[in-house]
Amino acid sequence: MDLDTQRARARTFRDSHGEAADGPLLLANAWDAASAVVFERLGVAAVGTTSAGIAASLGYPDGEHVPREEMIAAIGRIADSVALPVSADIEAGYGDTPAAVGETVTRTLAAGAVGVNVEDGTGDPDEPLRSTADHAARIRAARAAADDAGVPAVVNGRTDVFWAGVGAESDRLDRAVERADAYVDAGSDCVFVPGVADPDTIEALARRIDAPLNVLGGPGAPSVPALGDLGVARVSVGSGPMRATLGRLETIGEELLAAGTYESMAEAVPYGDLAALLAAARERREA
Amino acid sequence: MDLDTQRARARTFRDSHGEAADGPLLLANAWDAASAVVFERLGVAAVGTTSAGIAASLGYPDGEHVPREEMIAAIGRIADSVALPVSADIEAGYGDTPAAVGETVTRTLAAGAVGVNVEDGTGDPDEPLRSTADHAARIRAARAAADDAGVPAVVNGRTDVFWAGVGAESDRLDRAVERADAYVDAGSDCVFVPGVADPDTIEALARRIDAPLNVLGGPGAPSVPALGDLGVARVSVGSGPMRATLGRLETIGEELLAAGTYESMAEAVPYGDLAALLAAARERREA
Repeated sequence: MDLDTQRARARTFRDSHGEAADGPLLLANAWDAASAVVFERLGVAAVGTTSAGIAASLGYPDGEHVPREEMIAAIGRIADSVALPVSADIEAGYGDTPAAVGETVTRTLAAGAVGVNVEDGTGDPDEPLRSTADHAARIRAARAAADDAGVPAVVNGRTDVFWAGVGAESDRLDRAVERADAYVDAGSDCVFVPGVADPDTIEALARRIDAPLNVLGGPGAPSVPALGDLGVARVSVGSGPMRATLGRLETIGEELLAAGTYESMAEAVPYGDLAALLAAARERREA
Repeated sequence: MDLDTQRARARTFRDSHGEAADGPLLLANAWDAASAVVFERLGVAAVGTTSAGIAASLGYPDGEHVPREEMIAAIGRIADSVALPVSADIEAGYGDTPAAVGETVTRTLAAGAVGVNVEDGTGDPDEPLRSTADHAARIRAARAAADDAGVPAVVNGRTDVFWAGVGAESDRLDRAVERADAYVDAGSDCVFVPGVADPDTIEALARRIDAPLNVLGGPGAPSVPALGDLGVARVSVGSGPMRATLGRLETIGEELLAAGTYESMAEAVPYGDLAALLAAARERREA
């Protein structure tokens, strides 16, 4: 992707945060080129990636088990297949040091993304979050890498205080806000707090965090417009759509094995439509 | 995958053709590691790949637009993620000459597949099929490559007489049988005739072709047991499941954009289940 195109996508994406009048920005999370072009045809404004979805598609569990280059290549296939802003889920940044996070961001932007999520969760149950200072330094490195690339990319600092269920429930709101403040000071444009569905807590997060708030939509969470009413600026859906398509695949497989019929395959994108969508994506990529 | 494991899978796969008492062999067609492990968990006996599905997932239209190495890498990710026989859809073999087809088969088997589909369709509306002699030479090269690899892989010669709608409808049965005979003579273990749903025609194909017959199941086709009653030995489902999951994704996206709700995401593989499936796949791969 040429730099002018990428900068334009980044600006569009940046400006679409906080236009509260139209409701929250909805990011549809894709895991491969096909899912991305289907979302694009429906008219979504932006595409996110899902690390869990990409990892599963490539044969790995979530949690930075995918080699960094494979993850970035998958992000690039998505970014190259649509004409929309693509924000990349780069987990904790694929590296121990802030410099490694910066390098990951540099490569992710080179692959065509115009936003990155960087999470403070470690996946280690004994030490579920990096220290606030450490993660702020990683956010600062991500920000600097985007600035150096000349792409006004949206850095989305994520805290897993709720997602990982850290500490007493009554303390989580304060902990999340304290971390959010530090991440915004370090250059995070937006703050992502997955794992929270309680409306009062979401409203308090939106009110107390001095940046656009991103929460996760999905079964059990308030609807996208309801989240907007609570002050949420951005809603993403993580691995939900990917896991739901696999749920449909289970139904298809069960029916094939039991009755040997095809009812659950009836609601399908026609072969010719899929071919046309991908041909268009390829032409745009090679233009 | 070590050669002993691969040979055992190939023998299992070979033996599962033509056990008519249990009904036809059902191949569930996967397009990535996640779809393969979901099918495996359901208890399918074998996994096929779908070139259209893999191509779409990687950002390409069907019809050998994917670079050969990318297609084979995707087949390898599938074969490495399951403990089942995997038969690879290698389209027309990715190359102009029989030698090129042989090379493709060598590499596809090296990636862990234990079967290959090789089609005589060209995708060119003016010349929709290769000549019978040319395709027989390509089948012979595929067979020789499998023999050289020491893997008793199942070569599935495919004729697109019906799929591409070649010639007068009344001639297609004879044309397909004539091609099937030539492909079996050239070393094809099984013959794949996609694009036929009429029971009488299927019954005639099964009766007249002197090898196990593979047809495509899916909406509009007889059920798997009904195909068995017609004499079909093997049923695969092509890109149907992949396109059906994309159909579900459209429903998910439409609901997200319209009401902003998540009803159509409810039937999902849980996050923890997906992680466990892929962790098991990774452990097996690295063992």
